[in-house]
Amino acid sequence: MKNVTVLAGGVGGARFTRGLLGHLAGVAPEAAVTVVVNTGDDMWLDGLRICPDLDTVMYTLGGGINEEQGWGRPAETRRAAAEIAAYGRGWSWFTLGDLDLATHIVRTDLLRSGSTLSEATDFLCRRWQPGARLLPMSDQPVETHVRLAADIDEHRAGELMHFEEWWVRYRAGIAVTEFVQVGLADAVAAPGVLEAIENADLIILPPSNPVVSVGTITAVPGIRSALRSTPAQVVGVSPIIGGAAVRGMADACLHTIGVATSAEAVGLHYGARAAGGLLDAWLIDVTDAAALPVLAAAGIRSTAVPLWMTDLPTTTAIAAAALDLGA
Amino acid sequence: MKNVTVLAGGVGGARFTRGLLGHLAGVAPEAAVTVVVNTGDDMWLDGLRICPDLDTVMYTLGGGINEEQGWGRPAETRRAAAEIAAYGRGWSWFTLGDLDLATHIVRTDLLRSGSTLSEATDFLCRRWQPGARLLPMSDQPVETHVRLAADIDEHRAGELMHFEEWWVRYRAGIAVTEFVQVGLADAVAAPGVLEAIENADLIILPPSNPVVSVGTITAVPGIRSALRSTPAQVVGVSPIIGGAAVRGMADACLHTIGVATSAEAVGLHYGARAAGGLLDAWLIDVTDAAALPVLAAAGIRSTAVPLWMTDLPTTTAIAAAALDLGA
Repeated sequence: MKNVTVLAGGVGGARFTRGLLGHLAGVAPEAAVTVVVNTGDDMWLDGLRICPDLDTVMYTLGGGINEEQGWGRPAETRRAAAEIAAYGRGWSWFTLGDLDLATHIVRTDLLRSGSTLSEATDFLCRRWQPGARLLPMSDQPVETHVRLAADIDEHRAGELMHFEEWWVRYRAGIAVTEFVQVGLADAVAAPGVLEAIENADLIILPPSNPVVSVGTITAVPGIRSALRSTPAQVVGVSPIIGGAAVRGMADACLHTIGVATSAEAVGLHYGARAAGGLLDAWLIDVTDAAALPVLAAAGIRSTAVPLWMTDLPTTTAIAAAALDLGA
Repeated sequence: MKNVTVLAGGVGGARFTRGLLGHLAGVAPEAAVTVVVNTGDDMWLDGLRICPDLDTVMYTLGGGINEEQGWGRPAETRRAAAEIAAYGRGWSWFTLGDLDLATHIVRTDLLRSGSTLSEATDFLCRRWQPGARLLPMSDQPVETHVRLAADIDEHRAGELMHFEEWWVRYRAGIAVTEFVQVGLADAVAAPGVLEAIENADLIILPPSNPVVSVGTITAVPGIRSALRSTPAQVVGVSPIIGGAAVRGMADACLHTIGVATSAEAVGLHYGARAAGGLLDAWLIDVTDAAALPVLAAAGIRSTAVPLWMTDLPTTTAIAAAALDLGA
């Protein structure tokens, strides 16, 4: 096992990858991990470029994450954000911490000076030393939006809203009819992404949101076909346990695209590689073991193990099970 | 007395203007004060647009200034700046406070979105309500640089350094041969500046740095000729008392342009309007009363009063004396 590539969103992908690195340090210290990170949640706020998933992965792997909330920095303050609000700017529902703000300032400065997002990410990681190579899925902005149903205001039905507003401000609690990736048509995979898929010994879809994290990454032109043609095994880890999302409001996302919130349904949604889908194998929780025959019938090799990432040892064990399943 | 226009730098000009507003509130509540502010110290730092003099004037007049240091906000912290430094960015000798940072973020966001500096300043002042109209001298960037002598490194002789680096990092302690206003040739006075000079009932050059504050403002194309042709009286207040600068390293600036550090020399450097200079009148400190005959002989009407702005009442009295001298 030399090269492992993970396609990750925020908290779930970050925590899984931390467990993966912990496991590999013991069994395959020579292994190199590449994390292709969703940038569909990225946005401009107060003129600063915010990359929620890249930062969550970087802080988690680099030892700078707020463990309780899963994102942002520990011992954070919000003095600058309160001042920005006093000017009548900013978003009251998306508060930037003073420590976190520095990351956005440095990144934005690099981008404004002509660096790509890949280069800016590489620069930021020189400080955090995450122990894995972090690649944005694309250097072009691809921003996920939701198309509003008539739920909050019938006059706004059909309008687009940035995913982060829907997710953070409305807690995914208003009806939407679809997800739209603005900028997707003009985007290409960032340098190294297709190579990381083509040259991997194993590819893992961690327990990230299947719609707006893994789904967005695989929608970037070229990535899905690279996943289908790579000689590596592709192993997914279910983000759904016992009919509920491990974290966040993934059920609202799945509902919008007409997929049930179950480990079985998400596995079938990804689909078997042999049948044009993404998965060779699918790791589900013991609670969902009843789905194993259906998954097997669909051509997806599956195993059921405990999937709650309650701490580093349990997460390391999940990563070990994913590696076993892909072997 | 309806319209008073002040051409100001940072701390000295800000404090004088606060006294002026205090005085006018009692004797001429209908008077409107316009402050044309030096922007030659402006700079980009970490991708943010910093305007030291505009902020000092805005915070001072708006009740948000750190009184002890004369600039920045009170009860400031520097958490974001420490993080920026941890990324190896920023300038260790120019630390941005977390509260102050918000002003730079909002301003930069407005500028990046297409607002002019005048418009951005107007927006920021809506919060601070400074009680005077603040105008940047120009909406175009005009950044003061110093040309290095061979003092710190003979190989750097002749190079340009941003004024703020010379002033803050080196405390104006290394030899320079001249001041260069980068961008000056392409700059025009900001909207309202020439009108504020032409339509004023009184114009005041407050105790700001005569070289890099007042000197820079008057170097903007059109401003000097407007000052010479306005029907208003132009009254200056000496920033030099007893042969020393009231604040800062103005002596180093004066030395560079070959002017002695004295109230008399600065008055003669500004010159009598009747002889092609800037001043109708010049307010000096009682310590410097010996200069009165020389100034009178040069065609500059002068008076000597206590000029130390130790608190608001003394500053108000200085403003009253300046108004009397201009009457």
